[in-house]
Amino acid sequence: MGKLRFEITMSLDGFVAGPNPSHDEPLGIGGESLHEWAFRLKAWREPHGQSGGDTGPENDLVEESLANTGATIMGRRMFSGGAGPWEDDPNADAWWGDDPPFHHPVFILTHHPREPVTKEGGTTFTFVTEGIEAALEQARAAAGEKDVAVAGGANVGQQYLKAGLLDELLIHVAPLLLGDGTRLFENHLGPEQLELELTQAIDSPAAAHLRYRLAK
Amino acid sequence: MGKLRFEITMSLDGFVAGPNPSHDEPLGIGGESLHEWAFRLKAWREPHGQSGGDTGPENDLVEESLANTGATIMGRRMFSGGAGPWEDDPNADAWWGDDPPFHHPVFILTHHPREPVTKEGGTTFTFVTEGIEAALEQARAAAGEKDVAVAGGANVGQQYLKAGLLDELLIHVAPLLLGDGTRLFENHLGPEQLELELTQAIDSPAAAHLRYRLAK
Repeated sequence: MGKLRFEITMSLDGFVAGPNPSHDEPLGIGGESLHEWAFRLKAWREPHGQSGGDTGPENDLVEESLANTGATIMGRRMFSGGAGPWEDDPNADAWWGDDPPFHHPVFILTHHPREPVTKEGGTTFTFVTEGIEAALEQARAAAGEKDVAVAGGANVGQQYLKAGLLDELLIHVAPLLLGDGTRLFENHLGPEQLELELTQAIDSPAAAHLRYRLAK
Repeated sequence: MGKLRFEITMSLDGFVAGPNPSHDEPLGIGGESLHEWAFRLKAWREPHGQSGGDTGPENDLVEESLANTGATIMGRRMFSGGAGPWEDDPNADAWWGDDPPFHHPVFILTHHPREPVTKEGGTTFTFVTEGIEAALEQARAAAGEKDVAVAGGANVGQQYLKAGLLDELLIHVAPLLLGDGTRLFENHLGPEQLELELTQAIDSPAAAHLRYRLAK
């Protein structure tokens, strides 16, 4: 069985999105710049249907992550930016068009049931209303020997962390201070303090990438 | 003129101290473990009067920081853990005994005037009641060509950051989640988002050390 990894980009001051997220700015004001480190990498550009891009250790990290990931779990808000019944969600088809960059099964945590959706390129969207453990079970079955990635948002990652289900945190620290927005780590995350093991660190001028193992 | 550097250790979830700081636990519950990465280094042990310790890139980083620092600025709470008039502060002589580990002039921001104190080994304590710019002016004069370090706490660092006075952030990221306590970066730090330049990254299993240049 693969690992359960929570992988996300945060600003040095701990935000994964800027303030006031909207349909036009799903990551809030300034939030898009969090991900600039990725946009220029070959391993990011390829699954997004773009050519070229930088290679090197940072690219290897992303490439390896993608190659090792058999399924992704995300929250409803990350999927569409919306909330409530799907028929009222103007972005119910999500952000990624006909050929999303996942190329594997994606499980979306939602309170609103919906039939699965099959996209091009191997991406499927399955909507899970029974909570994080049910989503994990389905994702593990879909991933086989590969890892399952919790992609966000912060709240979904916090739920998996709090439940003690994560094996690994992979935090991309973007070199900026957002000053406000959605925090990756809210207060009172867990019942007690948690020691981590730093197992990998890679950096470029664009970001520092810190991988931690969680004791289980 | 040297640089103004804010150097501090934070947990991966952004805390520089745990909850409920007290005289016995000045860094709050669990906060002491933030600094475990340093305690084992030769460059930390030496100025604290202890022998032995690890060497290597992490030790070089600390050694270089200490060698380049001509003066330190800190808040009253970091100095003694207290507040209010000095005569009522049971820890008015601070944490470090007769031979504090600074070995250079230290400037303490306080609302309560007090005569300077001269300790052994080159450490002096000067109490500044006129605010952060006055403290910086005095520290720069004392440091000569060397850097001035803002050592904390979080609130003092935030004041220098907000005022646009910092040249450099050196953040030691300890591999733990404290879950609660004092955040290094509170919300609404500045008037706008701030881009940083990651100029150095060093890691060991004990911590990741990230150095950033701030645009002025």
